[in-house]
Amino acid sequence: MKLYHYFRSSASYRVRIALNLKKLPYESVVIDVRPPVSAQRTAEYLAINPLGLVPSLVDGADVLTQSLAIIEYLEETHPQPPLLPREPLSRARVRALALAIACEMAPLNNSGVLAYLKTGPLRASESAVDAWYARWIARGFEALEKQVSTTGDGRHMFGNSVTLADVLLVPQMYNARRYRCDLGPYPRLQAISAHLESLPEFARAAPEVQPGAE
Amino acid sequence: MKLYHYFRSSASYRVRIALNLKKLPYESVVIDVRPPVSAQRTAEYLAINPLGLVPSLVDGADVLTQSLAIIEYLEETHPQPPLLPREPLSRARVRALALAIACEMAPLNNSGVLAYLKTGPLRASESAVDAWYARWIARGFEALEKQVSTTGDGRHMFGNSVTLADVLLVPQMYNARRYRCDLGPYPRLQAISAHLESLPEFARAAPEVQPGAE
Repeated sequence: MKLYHYFRSSASYRVRIALNLKKLPYESVVIDVRPPVSAQRTAEYLAINPLGLVPSLVDGADVLTQSLAIIEYLEETHPQPPLLPREPLSRARVRALALAIACEMAPLNNSGVLAYLKTGPLRASESAVDAWYARWIARGFEALEKQVSTTGDGRHMFGNSVTLADVLLVPQMYNARRYRCDLGPYPRLQAISAHLESLPEFARAAPEVQPGAE
Repeated sequence: MKLYHYFRSSASYRVRIALNLKKLPYESVVIDVRPPVSAQRTAEYLAINPLGLVPSLVDGADVLTQSLAIIEYLEETHPQPPLLPREPLSRARVRALALAIACEMAPLNNSGVLAYLKTGPLRASESAVDAWYARWIARGFEALEKQVSTTGDGRHMFGNSVTLADVLLVPQMYNARRYRCDLGPYPRLQAISAHLESLPEFARAAPEVQPGAE
Protein backbone atom coordinates (compact mmCIF):
# COMPACT_ATOMS: atom_id res chain seq x y z
CA MET A 1 0.00 0.00 0.00
CA LYS A 2 1.01 3.59 -0.59
CA LEU A 3 0.02 6.39 1.80
CA TYR A 4 -0.10 10.01 0.62
CA HIS A 5 0.22 11.94 3.84
CA TYR A 6 1.62 14.93 5.67
CA PHE A 7 3.39 14.58 8.98
CA ARG A 8 1.23 17.09 10.84
CA SER A 9 -2.17 16.29 9.35
CA SER A 10 -4.23 14.61 12.04
CA ALA A 11 -6.24 12.61 9.50
CA SER A 12 -2.92 11.26 8.15
CA TYR A 13 -1.76 10.50 11.69
CA ARG A 14 -4.95 8.46 12.30
CA VAL A 15 -4.39 6.29 9.24
CA ARG A 16 -0.70 5.75 10.10
CA ILE A 17 -1.72 4.49 13.55
CA ALA A 18 -4.36 2.16 12.07
CA LEU A 19 -1.91 0.75 9.49
CA ASN A 20 0.63 0.12 12.25
CA LEU A 21 -1.95 -1.54 14.51
CA LYS A 22 -2.98 -3.80 11.62
CA LYS A 23 0.71 -4.51 10.95
CA LEU A 24 0.38 -3.37 7.33
CA PRO A 25 3.57 -1.98 5.80
CA TYR A 26 3.19 1.01 3.47
CA GLU A 27 5.20 3.25 1.24
CA SER A 28 5.13 6.97 2.17
CA VAL A 29 4.48 9.79 -0.27
CA VAL A 30 4.82 13.18 1.41
CA ILE A 31 2.20 15.78 0.43
CA ASP A 32 3.33 19.12 1.81
CA VAL A 33 0.04 20.95 2.43
CA ARG A 34 1.63 24.23 3.51
CA PRO A 35 1.46 27.27 1.25
CA PRO A 36 3.14 28.08 -1.05
CA VAL A 37 3.83 24.41 -1.84
CA SER A 38 0.19 23.29 -1.26
CA ALA A 39 0.88 19.95 -2.91
CA GLN A 40 -2.68 18.86 -2.09
CA ARG A 41 -4.07 21.38 -4.63
CA THR A 42 -1.95 20.30 -7.62
CA ALA A 43 -3.81 18.74 -10.58
CA GLU A 44 -1.81 15.57 -10.04
CA TYR A 45 -2.98 15.14 -6.45
CA LEU A 46 -6.55 16.31 -7.14
CA ALA A 47 -6.83 13.46 -9.64
CA ILE A 48 -6.17 11.11 -6.73
CA ASN A 49 -8.22 12.97 -4.12
CA PRO A 50 -10.74 15.46 -5.58
CA LEU A 51 -11.27 17.14 -2.21
CA GLY A 52 -7.57 18.01 -2.12
CA LEU A 53 -7.17 16.53 1.33
CA VAL A 54 -4.66 14.21 2.89
CA PRO A 55 -4.44 11.33 3.41
CA SER A 56 -5.14 9.04 0.47
CA LEU A 57 -4.36 5.34 0.65
CA VAL A 58 -3.59 3.44 -2.54
CA ASP A 59 -4.26 -0.29 -2.25
CA GLY A 60 -3.39 -2.02 -5.52
CA ALA A 61 -5.33 -0.15 -8.22
CA ASP A 62 -7.74 1.45 -5.73
CA VAL A 63 -7.52 4.90 -4.16
CA LEU A 64 -9.19 5.34 -0.80
CA THR A 65 -9.97 8.70 0.77
CA GLN A 66 -11.37 10.06 4.06
CA SER A 67 -9.49 8.76 7.10
CA LEU A 68 -12.51 7.13 8.79
CA ALA A 69 -13.60 5.39 5.59
CA ILE A 70 -10.03 4.16 5.14
CA ILE A 71 -9.88 2.80 8.68
CA GLU A 72 -13.27 1.05 8.38
CA TYR A 73 -11.97 -0.48 5.12
CA LEU A 74 -8.83 -1.71 6.86
CA GLU A 75 -11.02 -3.12 9.64
CA GLU A 76 -13.14 -5.02 7.10
CA THR A 77 -10.25 -6.29 4.99
CA HIS A 78 -7.77 -6.96 7.84
CA PRO A 79 -9.93 -7.74 10.88
CA GLN A 80 -7.05 -8.51 13.27
CA PRO A 81 -6.51 -6.94 15.70
CA PRO A 82 -10.05 -5.49 15.77
CA LEU A 83 -10.46 -1.71 16.19
CA LEU A 84 -14.19 -2.09 16.79
CA PRO A 85 -15.90 -4.39 19.33
CA ARG A 86 -18.10 -7.18 17.97
CA GLU A 87 -21.45 -6.21 19.38
CA PRO A 88 -23.49 -3.46 17.58
CA LEU A 89 -24.18 -1.30 20.66
CA SER A 90 -20.49 -1.25 21.62
CA ARG A 91 -19.52 -0.54 18.03
CA ALA A 92 -21.92 2.41 18.06
CA ARG A 93 -20.37 3.70 21.30
CA VAL A 94 -16.85 3.52 19.90
CA ARG A 95 -17.90 5.16 16.64
CA ALA A 96 -19.72 7.91 18.55
CA LEU A 97 -16.56 8.71 20.55
CA ALA A 98 -14.52 8.75 17.34
CA LEU A 99 -17.08 10.90 15.50
CA ALA A 100 -17.23 13.40 18.38
CA ILE A 101 -13.60 14.12 17.47
CA ALA A 102 -13.89 13.67 13.70
CA CYS A 103 -17.07 15.75 13.28
CA GLU A 104 -17.14 18.21 16.20
CA MET A 105 -13.49 19.06 16.80
CA ALA A 106 -11.06 18.31 13.97
CA PRO A 107 -13.00 19.96 11.08
CA LEU A 108 -13.14 23.30 12.87
CA ASN A 109 -9.43 23.47 13.54
CA ASN A 110 -7.88 22.14 10.36
CA SER A 111 -5.31 24.24 8.53
CA GLY A 112 -7.66 25.27 5.70
CA VAL A 113 -10.19 26.68 8.15
CA LEU A 114 -7.58 28.50 10.22
CA ALA A 115 -6.08 30.00 7.05
CA TYR A 116 -9.52 31.21 5.94
CA LEU A 117 -10.15 32.79 9.35
CA LYS A 118 -6.86 34.69 9.08
CA THR A 119 -6.67 35.64 5.44
CA GLY A 120 -10.34 35.53 4.33
CA PRO A 121 -12.90 38.33 4.86
CA LEU A 122 -12.88 37.84 8.63
CA ARG A 123 -9.21 38.84 8.92
CA ALA A 124 -9.12 37.24 12.35
CA SER A 125 -6.25 38.28 14.61
CA GLU A 126 -3.79 35.73 15.98
CA SER A 127 -5.51 35.87 19.38
CA ALA A 128 -8.98 35.45 17.86
CA VAL A 129 -7.76 32.37 15.99
CA ASP A 130 -6.25 30.99 19.19
CA ALA A 131 -9.56 31.57 21.00
CA TRP A 132 -11.41 29.83 18.16
CA TYR A 133 -9.07 26.85 18.37
CA ALA A 134 -9.31 26.59 22.15
CA ARG A 135 -13.09 26.87 22.06
CA TRP A 136 -13.66 23.75 19.96
CA ILE A 137 -10.99 21.78 21.80
CA ALA A 138 -12.63 22.64 25.14
CA ARG A 139 -16.17 21.98 23.92
CA GLY A 140 -15.23 18.54 22.63
CA PHE A 141 -12.81 17.39 25.33
CA GLU A 142 -15.16 18.49 28.12
CA ALA A 143 -17.81 16.09 26.86
CA LEU A 144 -15.35 13.29 26.13
CA GLU A 145 -13.72 13.60 29.58
CA LYS A 146 -17.14 12.88 31.11
CA GLN A 147 -17.92 10.05 28.71
CA VAL A 148 -14.66 8.11 29.15
CA SER A 149 -15.22 7.93 32.90
CA THR A 150 -17.90 5.36 32.16
CA THR A 151 -16.78 3.91 28.82
CA GLY A 152 -13.04 3.34 29.35
CA ASP A 153 -10.57 1.71 31.73
CA GLY A 154 -8.31 4.73 32.28
CA ARG A 155 -5.94 3.67 29.50
CA HIS A 156 -8.42 3.41 26.62
CA MET A 157 -11.42 5.47 25.52
CA PHE A 158 -13.62 2.38 25.43
CA GLY A 159 -13.17 -0.97 27.18
CA ASN A 160 -9.71 -2.30 27.83
CA SER A 161 -8.12 -2.52 24.41
CA VAL A 162 -7.28 -0.13 21.59
CA THR A 163 -10.22 0.94 19.42
CA LEU A 164 -11.01 3.41 16.68
CA ALA A 165 -11.76 6.01 19.37
CA ASP A 166 -8.16 5.81 20.62
CA VAL A 167 -6.88 6.15 17.07
CA LEU A 168 -8.75 9.46 16.86
CA LEU A 169 -7.84 10.75 20.32
CA VAL A 170 -4.06 10.78 20.05
CA PRO A 171 -3.82 13.03 16.95
CA GLN A 172 -6.38 15.40 18.47
CA MET A 173 -4.34 15.61 21.70
CA TYR A 174 -1.20 16.26 19.67
CA ASN A 175 -2.93 19.18 17.97
CA ALA A 176 -4.28 20.56 21.24
CA ARG A 177 -0.78 20.50 22.74
CA ARG A 178 0.68 22.09 19.65
CA TYR A 179 -1.76 24.99 20.00
CA ARG A 180 -1.01 25.14 23.75
CA CYS A 181 -4.59 24.51 24.77
CA ASP A 182 -5.13 24.09 28.50
CA LEU A 183 -5.47 20.34 29.02
CA GLY A 184 -5.63 20.55 32.82
CA PRO A 185 -9.39 19.95 32.91
CA TYR A 186 -9.01 16.59 31.10
CA PRO A 187 -6.87 14.33 33.31
CA ARG A 188 -8.55 11.14 32.07
CA LEU A 189 -8.00 11.99 28.42
CA GLN A 190 -4.40 12.92 29.18
CA ALA A 191 -3.78 9.60 30.97
CA ILE A 192 -5.35 7.63 28.11
CA SER A 193 -3.31 9.50 25.52
CA ALA A 194 -0.06 9.06 27.51
CA HIS A 195 -0.64 5.31 27.66
CA LEU A 196 -1.46 5.07 23.97
CA GLU A 197 1.51 7.21 22.89
CA SER A 198 3.79 4.75 24.72
CA LEU A 199 2.66 1.91 22.43
CA PRO A 200 5.04 1.29 19.50
CA GLU A 201 2.22 1.41 16.89
CA PHE A 202 1.31 4.92 18.03
CA ALA A 203 4.91 6.05 18.58
CA ARG A 204 5.94 5.07 15.04
CA ALA A 205 2.99 7.07 13.65
CA ALA A 206 3.88 10.29 15.50
CA PRO A 207 4.35 13.41 13.38
CA GLU A 208 7.90 14.08 14.54
CA VAL A 209 9.24 10.79 13.20
CA GLN A 210 7.65 11.04 9.73
CA PRO A 211 9.43 11.83 6.47
CA GLY A 212 9.25 15.55 5.83
CA ALA A 213 8.88 16.39 9.54
CA GLU A 214 10.66 19.44 10.81
CA MET B 1 -37.43 3.71 19.59
CA LYS B 2 -37.46 7.32 20.63
CA LEU B 3 -35.72 10.04 18.64
CA TYR B 4 -34.68 13.31 20.29
CA HIS B 5 -34.42 15.68 17.35
CA TYR B 6 -34.94 19.13 15.96
CA PHE B 7 -36.69 19.72 12.66
CA ARG B 8 -33.92 21.79 11.13
CA SER B 9 -30.87 19.93 12.45
CA SER B 10 -29.28 18.16 9.52
CA ALA B 11 -27.91 15.38 11.74
CA SER B 12 -31.49 14.77 12.94
CA TYR B 13 -32.75 14.83 9.36
CA ARG B 14 -30.19 12.13 8.42
CA VAL B 15 -31.38 9.79 11.17
CA ARG B 16 -35.05 10.36 10.32
CA ILE B 17 -34.32 9.35 6.71
CA ALA B 18 -32.43 6.23 7.82
CA LEU B 19 -35.21 5.19 10.23
CA ASN B 20 -37.79 5.62 7.46
CA LEU B 21 -35.68 3.66 4.95
CA LYS B 22 -35.34 0.83 7.49
CA LYS B 23 -39.10 1.03 8.13
CA LEU B 24 -38.56 1.56 11.85
CA PRO B 25 -41.28 3.53 13.62
CA TYR B 26 -40.16 5.97 16.31
CA GLU B 27 -41.55 8.35 18.87
CA SER B 28 -40.50 12.00 18.46
CA VAL B 29 -39.16 14.20 21.23
CA VAL B 30 -38.57 17.74 20.02
CA ILE B 31 -35.38 19.41 21.29
CA ASP B 32 -35.56 23.07 20.39
CA VAL B 33 -31.90 24.04 19.96
CA ARG B 34 -32.55 27.73 19.38
CA PRO B 35 -31.61 30.30 22.00
CA PRO B 36 -33.05 31.22 24.42
CA VAL B 37 -34.71 27.77 24.75
CA SER B 38 -31.49 25.84 23.94
CA ALA B 39 -33.07 22.60 25.14
CA GLN B 40 -29.90 20.74 24.12
CA ARG B 41 -27.94 22.45 26.94
CA THR B 42 -30.30 21.56 29.79
CA ALA B 43 -28.97 19.19 32.47
CA GLU B 44 -31.73 16.75 31.55
CA TYR B 45 -30.67 16.50 27.92
CA LEU B 46 -26.92 16.61 28.69
CA ALA B 47 -27.45 13.47 30.79
CA ILE B 48 -28.66 11.79 27.60
CA ASN B 49 -26.15 13.37 25.23
CA PRO B 50 -23.08 14.90 26.96
CA LEU B 51 -22.06 16.82 23.84
CA GLY B 52 -25.40 18.64 23.93
CA LEU B 53 -26.12 17.78 20.33
CA VAL B 54 -29.13 16.43 18.52
CA PRO B 55 -30.08 13.81 17.59
CA SER B 56 -30.07 11.04 20.22
CA LEU B 57 -31.79 7.74 19.56
CA VAL B 58 -33.10 5.70 22.47
CA ASP B 59 -33.42 1.99 21.69
CA GLY B 60 -34.78 0.15 24.71
CA ALA B 61 -32.45 1.07 27.58
CA ASP B 62 -29.66 2.30 25.29
CA VAL B 63 -28.95 5.85 24.20
CA LEU B 64 -27.17 6.28 20.91
CA THR B 65 -25.51 9.50 19.78
CA GLN B 66 -23.76 10.88 16.69
CA SER B 67 -25.84 10.52 13.53
CA LEU B 68 -23.34 8.41 11.58
CA ALA B 69 -22.79 6.03 14.50
CA ILE B 70 -26.57 5.73 14.84
CA ILE B 71 -27.01 4.94 11.14
CA GLU B 72 -24.19 2.34 11.16
CA TYR B 73 -25.91 0.78 14.21
CA LEU B 74 -29.24 0.67 12.37
CA GLU B 75 -27.46 -0.90 9.40
CA GLU B 76 -25.95 -3.60 11.62
CA THR B 77 -29.11 -4.34 13.59
CA HIS B 78 -31.62 -3.93 10.72
CA PRO B 79 -29.69 -4.86 7.57
CA GLN B 80 -32.63 -4.53 5.15
CA PRO B 81 -32.70 -2.55 2.97
CA PRO B 82 -28.91 -2.08 3.03
CA LEU B 83 -27.51 1.45 3.11
CA LEU B 84 -23.99 0.22 2.40
CA PRO B 85 -22.90 -2.09 -0.42
CA ARG B 86 -21.51 -5.52 0.50
CA GLU B 87 -18.02 -5.28 -0.85
CA PRO B 88 -15.36 -3.44 1.25
CA LEU B 89 -14.07 -1.15 -1.51
CA SER B 90 -17.61 0.00 -2.40
CA ARG B 91 -18.41 0.46 1.28
CA ALA B 92 -15.32 2.65 1.60
CA ARG B 93 -16.41 4.72 -1.42
CA VAL B 94 -19.90 5.29 0.03
CA ARG B 95 -18.50 6.15 3.45
CA ALA B 96 -15.99 8.55 1.89
CA LEU B 97 -18.80 10.41 0.08
CA ALA B 98 -20.80 10.56 3.31
CA LEU B 99 -17.81 11.70 5.36
CA ALA B 100 -16.95 14.41 2.85
CA ILE B 101 -20.27 15.95 3.91
CA ALA B 102 -20.18 14.95 7.59
CA CYS B 103 -16.58 16.04 8.21
CA GLU B 104 -15.79 18.75 5.66
CA MET B 105 -19.08 20.61 5.24
CA ALA B 106 -21.68 20.16 7.98
CA PRO B 107 -19.44 20.84 11.03
CA LEU B 108 -18.37 24.24 9.71
CA ASN B 109 -21.89 25.47 9.13
CA ASN B 110 -23.79 24.19 12.13
CA SER B 111 -25.75 26.61 14.28
CA GLY B 112 -23.26 26.61 17.18
CA VAL B 113 -20.41 27.61 14.90
CA LEU B 114 -22.43 30.30 13.13
CA ALA B 115 -23.53 31.71 16.50
CA TYR B 116 -19.91 31.81 17.71
CA LEU B 117 -18.83 33.61 14.53
CA LYS B 118 -21.50 36.25 15.09
CA THR B 119 -21.50 36.72 18.85
CA GLY B 120 -18.01 35.51 19.83
CA PRO B 121 -14.80 37.58 19.66
CA LEU B 122 -14.87 37.60 15.85
CA ARG B 123 -18.15 39.58 15.76
CA ALA B 124 -18.61 38.53 12.16
CA SER B 125 -21.05 40.59 10.10
CA GLU B 126 -24.06 38.97 8.44
CA SER B 127 -22.30 39.11 5.07
CA ALA B 128 -19.11 37.58 6.46
CA VAL B 129 -21.13 34.72 7.93
CA ASP B 130 -22.89 34.22 4.58
CA ALA B 131 -19.50 34.14 2.82
CA TRP B 132 -18.24 31.62 5.38
CA TYR B 133 -21.27 29.42 4.80
CA ALA B 134 -21.04 29.60 1.03
CA ARG B 135 -17.31 28.87 1.09
CA TRP B 136 -17.63 25.46 2.74
CA ILE B 137 -20.68 24.51 0.68
CA ALA B 138 -18.81 25.35 -2.52
CA ARG B 139 -15.60 23.63 -1.48
CA GLY B 140 -17.42 20.42 -0.64
CA PHE B 141 -20.03 20.32 -3.42
CA GLU B 142 -17.42 21.12 -6.09
CA ALA B 143 -15.51 17.97 -5.18
CA LEU B 144 -18.65 15.85 -4.81
CA GLU B 145 -20.06 17.03 -8.17
CA LYS B 146 -16.93 15.65 -9.83
CA GLN B 147 -16.97 12.42 -7.85
CA VAL B 148 -20.62 11.49 -8.49
CA SER B 149 -20.06 11.67 -12.25
CA THR B 150 -18.16 8.40 -11.90
CA THR B 151 -19.68 6.87 -8.76
CA GLY B 152 -23.43 7.38 -9.28
CA ASP B 153 -26.19 6.78 -11.82
CA GLY B 154 -27.55 10.34 -11.91
CA ARG B 155 -30.18 9.58 -9.27
CA HIS B 156 -27.91 8.29 -6.50
CA MET B 157 -24.50 9.33 -5.19
CA PHE B 158 -23.21 5.78 -5.55
CA GLY B 159 -24.46 2.94 -7.72
CA ASN B 160 -28.15 2.66 -8.49
CA SER B 161 -29.80 2.42 -5.09
CA VAL B 162 -30.04 4.56 -1.96
CA THR B 163 -26.95 4.51 0.27
CA LEU B 164 -25.60 6.29 3.30
CA ALA B 165 -24.14 8.93 0.97
CA ASP B 166 -27.65 9.84 -0.23
CA VAL B 167 -28.87 10.04 3.37
CA LEU B 168 -26.20 12.70 3.98
CA LEU B 169 -26.66 14.62 0.73
CA VAL B 170 -30.31 15.61 1.08
CA PRO B 171 -30.00 17.42 4.45
CA GLN B 172 -26.87 19.21 3.22
CA MET B 173 -28.72 20.37 0.08
CA TYR B 174 -31.62 21.55 2.23
CA ASN B 175 -29.21 23.66 4.28
CA ALA B 176 -27.48 25.05 1.22
CA ARG B 177 -30.85 26.12 -0.23
CA ARG B 178 -31.89 27.62 3.08
CA TYR B 179 -28.77 29.80 3.08
CA ARG B 180 -29.38 30.63 -0.59
CA CYS B 181 -26.08 29.21 -1.76
CA ASP B 182 -25.60 29.18 -5.52
CA LEU B 183 -26.25 25.58 -6.55
CA GLY B 184 -25.98 26.25 -10.30
CA PRO B 185 -22.51 24.68 -10.53
CA TYR B 186 -23.79 21.34 -9.18
CA PRO B 187 -26.41 20.03 -11.64
CA ARG B 188 -25.64 16.39 -10.87
CA LEU B 189 -26.03 16.84 -7.11
CA GLN B 190 -29.25 18.79 -7.69
CA ALA B 191 -30.68 16.02 -9.89
CA ILE B 192 -29.74 13.36 -7.35
CA SER B 193 -31.27 15.32 -4.50
CA ALA B 194 -34.48 16.02 -6.47
CA HIS B 195 -34.91 12.30 -7.13
CA LEU B 196 -34.24 11.36 -3.52
CA GLU B 197 -36.56 14.04 -2.12
CA SER B 198 -39.37 12.54 -4.20
CA LEU B 199 -39.07 9.23 -2.34
CA PRO B 200 -41.58 8.86 0.52
CA GLU B 201 -38.88 7.90 3.07
CA PHE B 202 -37.07 11.16 2.40
CA ALA B 203 -40.23 13.26 2.06
CA ARG B 204 -41.53 12.12 5.45
CA ALA B 205 -38.19 13.07 7.04
CA ALA B 206 -38.17 16.61 5.66
CA PRO B 207 -37.83 19.45 8.19
CA GLU B 208 -41.05 21.18 7.21
CA VAL B 209 -43.25 18.20 8.11
CA GLN B 210 -41.71 17.57 11.55
CA PRO B 211 -43.28 18.34 14.91
CA GLY B 212 -42.12 21.76 16.06
CA ALA B 213 -41.49 22.97 12.48
CA GLU B 214 -42.38 26.53 11.67
